[in-house]
Amino acid sequence: MYSLIMKKRRGEELTLEETDFIVRGYTAGDIPDAQMAAFLMAVCFNGMTDEELTQFTDSMIITGKVYDLHDELGGPCVDKHSTGGVGDKMTLIDAPIVAACGVYVPKMSGRGLGHTGGTIDKLRAIPGLVTDISHEEFIHTVKAAGFAVMSQTDELVPADRKIYALRDVTATVDSIPLIASSIMSKKLATGADGIVLDVKYGDGAFMKDIEGARILGETCTRLAKRYRRGCTAVLSDMSKPLGRMVGNALEVREAAELLMGKAASPDVEALSERLSVAMLVSAGFDRDEAVAAAREAVTSGRALERLEHMVELQHGDPRALTDPDRMGVPRYTERYKAPRSGRITTFAAEKTGLAAMYLGAGRRTINDTIDPTAGIEILRTVGDEVREGEDIAILYSSSVTDMSVSTKLLDEAVTIQ
Amino acid sequence: MYSLIMKKRRGEELTLEETDFIVRGYTAGDIPDAQMAAFLMAVCFNGMTDEELTQFTDSMIITGKVYDLHDELGGPCVDKHSTGGVGDKMTLIDAPIVAACGVYVPKMSGRGLGHTGGTIDKLRAIPGLVTDISHEEFIHTVKAAGFAVMSQTDELVPADRKIYALRDVTATVDSIPLIASSIMSKKLATGADGIVLDVKYGDGAFMKDIEGARILGETCTRLAKRYRRGCTAVLSDMSKPLGRMVGNALEVREAAELLMGKAASPDVEALSERLSVAMLVSAGFDRDEAVAAAREAVTSGRALERLEHMVELQHGDPRALTDPDRMGVPRYTERYKAPRSGRITTFAAEKTGLAAMYLGAGRRTINDTIDPTAGIEILRTVGDEVREGEDIAILYSSSVTDMSVSTKLLDEAVTIQ
Repeated sequence: MYSLIMKKRRGEELTLEETDFIVRGYTAGDIPDAQMAAFLMAVCFNGMTDEELTQFTDSMIITGKVYDLHDELGGPCVDKHSTGGVGDKMTLIDAPIVAACGVYVPKMSGRGLGHTGGTIDKLRAIPGLVTDISHEEFIHTVKAAGFAVMSQTDELVPADRKIYALRDVTATVDSIPLIASSIMSKKLATGADGIVLDVKYGDGAFMKDIEGARILGETCTRLAKRYRRGCTAVLSDMSKPLGRMVGNALEVREAAELLMGKAASPDVEALSERLSVAMLVSAGFDRDEAVAAAREAVTSGRALERLEHMVELQHGDPRALTDPDRMGVPRYTERYKAPRSGRITTFAAEKTGLAAMYLGAGRRTINDTIDPTAGIEILRTVGDEVREGEDIAILYSSSVTDMSVSTKLLDEAVTIQ
Repeated sequence: MYSLIMKKRRGEELTLEETDFIVRGYTAGDIPDAQMAAFLMAVCFNGMTDEELTQFTDSMIITGKVYDLHDELGGPCVDKHSTGGVGDKMTLIDAPIVAACGVYVPKMSGRGLGHTGGTIDKLRAIPGLVTDISHEEFIHTVKAAGFAVMSQTDELVPADRKIYALRDVTATVDSIPLIASSIMSKKLATGADGIVLDVKYGDGAFMKDIEGARILGETCTRLAKRYRRGCTAVLSDMSKPLGRMVGNALEVREAAELLMGKAASPDVEALSERLSVAMLVSAGFDRDEAVAAAREAVTSGRALERLEHMVELQHGDPRALTDPDRMGVPRYTERYKAPRSGRITTFAAEKTGLAAMYLGAGRRTINDTIDPTAGIEILRTVGDEVREGEDIAILYSSSVTDMSVSTKLLDEAVTIQ
């Protein structure tokens, strides 16, 4: 391992045998954290060539179970991944839309941490809904409802879990090849026909600038190509929260409302179309056909039906979609008012995400429990003119009475000029 | 710690509070190996400013006991450090010379590892000699004999021991600021008036090229200046072994012979003068005075007397100096013969050091025991013309009968053209 760390430090290219040695050895516990941390830091500085990244990703994939969902489902299937954002409920919208168009969306998801929420946590706001389901139940649900969302098991790329935990404490998270191998190892291990990546940029995203997001998207796409998989990267803005709702039950409500045809926030509407079209195109639709099919899936109500069916099959109460109070009514409410009159120029995503987290909507550490009713409803956003004292947002929680931490974060998030 | 790793990764300068946090936290076990390894790798890439290096070194020093040897000894004292080489017996020569000139040389030394030998191990070839002595005994010996060599205790910069062990497995050894802080923290903690560094370059040294050695020497010198200590860096060649002997008893013999006025190998003679003059100058001698005093210390026999006295006070048998067989006679001997006729163009130091190590003269791992009689006597060196079958070196050991590993290493070390 010493010589491989040195090789990486010198900027030389590792062979497949070498990445296998590193990834397998670390996953098995033969290589200590300290050596892996030094290696990862050297990668942060020297990067990886495409060849090397492919090998490293391959080495990660083979530490776990490799699926062939296309074969198991007997039809075209696409996967979708977001690099993480605030108010990002797109999976709850796009998976049913794409499923309603006849393309399977078998999704294995991880949990949210910090200021970004996870799809699993949002779905669990629905009473009874279970995501720790067996593989058989997962396949059954996908076949019947067109999509399903299950919690990632320990069998899916165990190397990634261990490496990610180490990166998280050694300041080696934001490295393009390390992010790409982490995302793509899990996506490539499932055997979907197409992969659509929603690569976020801006304040609330991993990638603070669009250029970094573009490079990450291209790196992932090239990597998928080497596996002969279709992959499309959609770049989307995360400088402000996506849509009007941040929080688990709140976001389920916002997603369901869009599928019911209610007026949606323009950014959610636009991004949901971009993503669902990209997913359909990656499954073989042509572009115009995809746009029409996606719209029709919503207007016909078939996408909502898919969501209801999936919720039912995963033991949840589908009535929660049309009657959100079934997910619980927040005990505490506080209005966040404009401290002065003017125009809102920023509504910073990360701070808003943290404000929601402190209300109980997210986890500070992996073992925190989530308050499904907690979150923030955004009434006025960037570009809006507000008068002093006018409501800008509503804070909800059933677990936090003193909302001053979150209010303070919103003070920092919102600029009025 | 996460944010400090990130700060270093971004190439920003750390403050004293921050280096304190890192070094103290790591030494106390509060910061895990993985985080420290990532930090050290970031230092390898981004280096340290002089200000930062001073702070980092200071943070290391205060993890242990700080001495004021000048005060304790009540007179000028100088310390000498070699960055490590093969056949480097200079301390055994220069410390007695400088002591004979009236300047104290209180030396705390570490053990040798790998292809380089340590002064402690060489001295321990002398029957009875003890280096694990108390501080009081150490001071007493220095006062009486003019110099003493004791094993570093755990109290001397514990941070360095822990950080060095980590660097050793994470490919972060060869970083100028990390080497400089490791060397200088220990030297500065003792409170000597002057410090002379023998910075080796070439095949058998840390620094493979003279430019790197020069930068290391200058970095250490600037660091000492910030502590208002005199420090001189002497750059010396380590492309071939120093002198005729490599091994513990063998090197004691070579050093004693020089002090007895016997003909010495020209490189040993030249370097011993450079170093002893630098040590004397750092204690206030002027240059010409230092040259004359150093020579007189040898010709008068007073340097040898100092060595004998020091050996006696450290419980060793001083007769071993004039009668080397008292250090043991090697049980096995093998002649290394010229495989062809020609001129010796290289006698690579590292391979020779490893050859001696495999004979029992050094340690592969920290717990290996040493065979004091083992080593290599070099009969013909770079520049010499040899005939096929002529003796080039003699291999000695009391512990290894099959010397083929060492012979093979010498085959690689020696080039005849």
